[in-house]
Amino acid sequence: MFLQKVNSPEDLKKLKLQELTSYVQELRQFMIEVMSKTGGHVAANLGVVELSAAIHYVFNTPEDKIVWDVGHQCYAHKIITGRRDYFHTIRQDGGISGFTKISESPYDVFGAGHSSTSISAGLGIAEAQWQTKTNNQVVSIIGDGALTAGMAYEGLNHAGHLRRPNFIVIFNDNEMSISENVGALAKFFGKRVNSVVYNKLRAEIKDTLKAISTPEMDFFEGVKKLTHSVKDLFSTTSFFEALGFRYIGPVDGQNVEDLVETLSSVKRLSLQSMANARDAKEDCEFDPPILVHVKTKKGYGLKTAQERPGDFHGVTGFDLTTGEPTKKPTSAPTYTSVFAKALCKAAQKDKSVVAVTAAMPDGTGLNVFQKQFPDRFYDVGIAEQHAVTFSAAMRLSGLKPAVALYSTFMQRAYDQLIHDAAIQKIPLALFLDRSGLVGADGPTHHGVFDMSYLRCVPGMHIMAPKDENELQHMVNTALHCNKLASVRFPRGEGVGVKLDDELKMLELGKSEKLIEHEHSLVSIWAAGNMVKTACDVAESLLLKQGLLCDVVNARFIKPLDDAALLKDAEKTKLIVTLEENAVKGGLGSEILESLAAQNIVMPVLNLGIPDEFIEHGAVKRLYEYCELSPKQVEQAIIERLKTLVLAKQLSPESAVFPSEAHH
Amino acid sequence: MFLQKVNSPEDLKKLKLQELTSYVQELRQFMIEVMSKTGGHVAANLGVVELSAAIHYVFNTPEDKIVWDVGHQCYAHKIITGRRDYFHTIRQDGGISGFTKISESPYDVFGAGHSSTSISAGLGIAEAQWQTKTNNQVVSIIGDGALTAGMAYEGLNHAGHLRRPNFIVIFNDNEMSISENVGALAKFFGKRVNSVVYNKLRAEIKDTLKAISTPEMDFFEGVKKLTHSVKDLFSTTSFFEALGFRYIGPVDGQNVEDLVETLSSVKRLSLQSMANARDAKEDCEFDPPILVHVKTKKGYGLKTAQERPGDFHGVTGFDLTTGEPTKKPTSAPTYTSVFAKALCKAAQKDKSVVAVTAAMPDGTGLNVFQKQFPDRFYDVGIAEQHAVTFSAAMRLSGLKPAVALYSTFMQRAYDQLIHDAAIQKIPLALFLDRSGLVGADGPTHHGVFDMSYLRCVPGMHIMAPKDENELQHMVNTALHCNKLASVRFPRGEGVGVKLDDELKMLELGKSEKLIEHEHSLVSIWAAGNMVKTACDVAESLLLKQGLLCDVVNARFIKPLDDAALLKDAEKTKLIVTLEENAVKGGLGSEILESLAAQNIVMPVLNLGIPDEFIEHGAVKRLYEYCELSPKQVEQAIIERLKTLVLAKQLSPESAVFPSEAHH
Repeated sequence: MFLQKVNSPEDLKKLKLQELTSYVQELRQFMIEVMSKTGGHVAANLGVVELSAAIHYVFNTPEDKIVWDVGHQCYAHKIITGRRDYFHTIRQDGGISGFTKISESPYDVFGAGHSSTSISAGLGIAEAQWQTKTNNQVVSIIGDGALTAGMAYEGLNHAGHLRRPNFIVIFNDNEMSISENVGALAKFFGKRVNSVVYNKLRAEIKDTLKAISTPEMDFFEGVKKLTHSVKDLFSTTSFFEALGFRYIGPVDGQNVEDLVETLSSVKRLSLQSMANARDAKEDCEFDPPILVHVKTKKGYGLKTAQERPGDFHGVTGFDLTTGEPTKKPTSAPTYTSVFAKALCKAAQKDKSVVAVTAAMPDGTGLNVFQKQFPDRFYDVGIAEQHAVTFSAAMRLSGLKPAVALYSTFMQRAYDQLIHDAAIQKIPLALFLDRSGLVGADGPTHHGVFDMSYLRCVPGMHIMAPKDENELQHMVNTALHCNKLASVRFPRGEGVGVKLDDELKMLELGKSEKLIEHEHSLVSIWAAGNMVKTACDVAESLLLKQGLLCDVVNARFIKPLDDAALLKDAEKTKLIVTLEENAVKGGLGSEILESLAAQNIVMPVLNLGIPDEFIEHGAVKRLYEYCELSPKQVEQAIIERLKTLVLAKQLSPESAVFPSEAHH
Repeated sequence: MFLQKVNSPEDLKKLKLQELTSYVQELRQFMIEVMSKTGGHVAANLGVVELSAAIHYVFNTPEDKIVWDVGHQCYAHKIITGRRDYFHTIRQDGGISGFTKISESPYDVFGAGHSSTSISAGLGIAEAQWQTKTNNQVVSIIGDGALTAGMAYEGLNHAGHLRRPNFIVIFNDNEMSISENVGALAKFFGKRVNSVVYNKLRAEIKDTLKAISTPEMDFFEGVKKLTHSVKDLFSTTSFFEALGFRYIGPVDGQNVEDLVETLSSVKRLSLQSMANARDAKEDCEFDPPILVHVKTKKGYGLKTAQERPGDFHGVTGFDLTTGEPTKKPTSAPTYTSVFAKALCKAAQKDKSVVAVTAAMPDGTGLNVFQKQFPDRFYDVGIAEQHAVTFSAAMRLSGLKPAVALYSTFMQRAYDQLIHDAAIQKIPLALFLDRSGLVGADGPTHHGVFDMSYLRCVPGMHIMAPKDENELQHMVNTALHCNKLASVRFPRGEGVGVKLDDELKMLELGKSEKLIEHEHSLVSIWAAGNMVKTACDVAESLLLKQGLLCDVVNARFIKPLDDAALLKDAEKTKLIVTLEENAVKGGLGSEILESLAAQNIVMPVLNLGIPDEFIEHGAVKRLYEYCELSPKQVEQAIIERLKTLVLAKQLSPESAVFPSEAHH
């Protein structure tokens, strides 16, 4: 047993190469056992067990810097770097993160969560190391899926230009993720090359060769075969070499001995280049950085995961005997599934409706749409920027795209939304799944800024449904309202309400009053899934305190229902805003701005996500941390009313209210 | 004279090929004459006169769709498509736009301003055309500089995958812009190919060839020469073919007859592919889209512009006789130059300071820094995403990068700012030039959202200087405060104040009171260059109305000086906020939120950029349109005070105030 002996990369280096192979097998088995309970990104992690071990075996971490892309395949890395005994807490409430995280370990040199950042980050570290004249090396790992993002290309292009010999990229090619797109690259020389230049040159070569050929020695035939080989070679190398890298590979990523051998050569090569560069004259160009092509298999070592890696991208756990993912019993359909069904319904009625995803057909539920309308479905790769502009142009030309992204990934397409859609007044329907707190994935995945950064964009129509039935209607409204519109909805199950059969059009900019009393003291304006909290709070305040609260489902964060707000302002003594979005700039701000613009001066209590990044954990606990549980909201309202009484902005007699005096 | 005869592409098509050549010469001459007065993107436009004419000569516009990238090289296109008589108004107040603009002409099929969107936009249009079964073709033009942006790559990658035969890309290669980066691509096969696989294969081939060679017929030597040719071929084509395109070219972009011939073939090829695709069986793969490589020269036909295209990127005009750009007499140094000098000063003291630009060394003033510190300067290409993450990683590893971007381009790196810098609490200094209204470049370039979209990011320190002297200190503060910080400053000249010799550290989150009276009725909180307006307004109100106003330079939009605001709130009857940022979500919102959080209930008047996109034009007129001129601000304050009196929120006696009754 080697697993227990290895508590650091130093321990790992003490193993003989053969022992390393045994260690890796134990490590994988350990990971499978733990992940069957904790869940996580099972398939991605099982593919890179050997690679993780080989990197730490060969490189001198943490002085040498390892930058993982996305970070969701860092489990073996975490176990090797001293976190074996905490591994069972991964992604759990209060446990270690499912991604790399600077604050967790000196071995996590750059945090991640979103895709395709490792080249830029690794290059920045390499440059700083180079400038400060260390002898360290920097290794960035990037997957084939991540390579479809423009950001990775920007990084590669700059790295090829900067030529820092201490920088190494490992291309983790599991032919998965967005296989089709990267496939466009991989297969390009499998097909005939059809360019005019190529054909012209080939004709010239043919003539030359025919001229020098003899019956015994047919140059032309011989060369035909050769150029074919050259082509095959180019198919794997040309892309990276075009971007200025030295290409090495491919290496079998499931063979730890091969990996150690290759990475050792790479390390030597890089050190040699570094030495050359230090000795070089000023105008001498350095050796290019190295790219190592490693072929891995997602889910390797767990039959079901290897066969169906998509099902094991992110799971809550699986059965060790059958290998089948654990299914949580659900009481209500998820927002995601309701969104997908509503979109399909709309697409059935309107042939111009198409759907666009950025490498998230499963996560966004669009796989359902894809099955029903394969010709009207676009997976553009991890390319949110392209997704939005491509969709805006389709909309301009007669199609009605539904762009389905996670709220947090919409941040990648912010300029495209403003520059390509909004300025040109192109109506576009954006569906932002995983809005609000997402739980186990933590700060990189919480979707808590969209209402703030979308609100300043002229022409935006920002919606949030109070439940899954309203989501249906908002899908329909966003598609057909002829406006630039976004609908944000949370991860997980809906409230459990009945779904209407027919999709309706909601009136734009109109709120919905859910609880109303003639003499309410307070009006709570809530958005999205906080509407339910608002109703619970209002009921409880009435029951326990005899306090009358109106509750409004804002529906539209923008344009806000200013008229309804005005009425509530005139009627009540306190407006409370409640949202699962940053309290800075969201619904609360919109309401403050509206009141100020309407020249209304009255107390407002803004409740939402505080101005900090929220860690991962159980959503329920996170709500409590953010003081957004029904009980805390109730308490906050009572406290504010007390303050108003004390400040004489409110008379204790003006309402049935338990002021300080009554206690 | 053909120039006057051509009022549409239809007229153009009536010309014989030879006449077209004459027309193009006249067109260029006309453009030079007009641009000498109007200015504009002179170099870029002169390079594509022939290309613009050839495209409209060959393709059936506007049914065939031409998508220009950036859009700043569309002048010839505009003249050909019926806008010759308005051409002298280009970029002028009330005149036609300097970019393509949907609302201006049916020939402008997609608006632009930012770089690298034309592939995504063109592909979206092509897809919609394809789905709706038109016979039209879509031509996207993209420059070599624009190709350094990840978004272009995302588009190419998806286009190569979708394979729509109606989609054509013209690669306008002027070897300019970011020549070095694209150079990494162009030169890659000029160097030895150094990959392990290649060397291995070559060794194998060598052995095989030697085995079959005879003394008379040395296969090895013959093949060595051949593989060299193949390599050269691949250097130009492989990159695009790897991404799924059929490569054609290069074509001389200054030869209109060559262009017409090539584009005609391309058109036929595309139409043939379209016909094939329509007839094809379901599982049959379409022909790839075509990429035409056109070589042009920036500034062609104007000697000075061709020799120094950088100087003619964007000019206000030039002397027809000498060819020298017009220099506006300036009374004060520009914010840009003060920023650059302050940065150099800081870099002299602190060796860890480095500078990063995304293809804007001139625009951001960093060319000054580059000259002084060539080894500490990074131009990463049009790659804002990479710029921010690369810089964050450098900061983490001991360097102190100054990231200099235009406010509007910062939108491209929004996710990187949140995900790579803010979440990880990496201090980083962002300098956002061209904040506020920029004038001639119009809505795509106004930098009016940054305060709103940055404000919701936890940990941000958002600064705006009241003048160029304060800018100096903010440069220093942002670099050394150890926080994630942004400094936004406007285009053009400073106020004309004296510059301190020493750079100071400003106290974080501290505002500055500029005008103070014991019994002020109003307090104006202003940010950036609106501080001067606030002071002017306060002085005028005192003089003309005897009205006492305090004026505060907010300095920090975040963290806001809540304590100072509280004092002002207690002392005055009205808080006015004034900013050259969207009124939605900016300083005004921050102040409303702060007051609400501090439980202060009082009237607030928010003044800023209204919630719409502002057209191009003279900045002075744009201010008036936004009701932000000193006179209008003054009026708005008086109006609000009157409303307060009428609403009995303010007694007429409470201040020296000309209420309705006094008129």
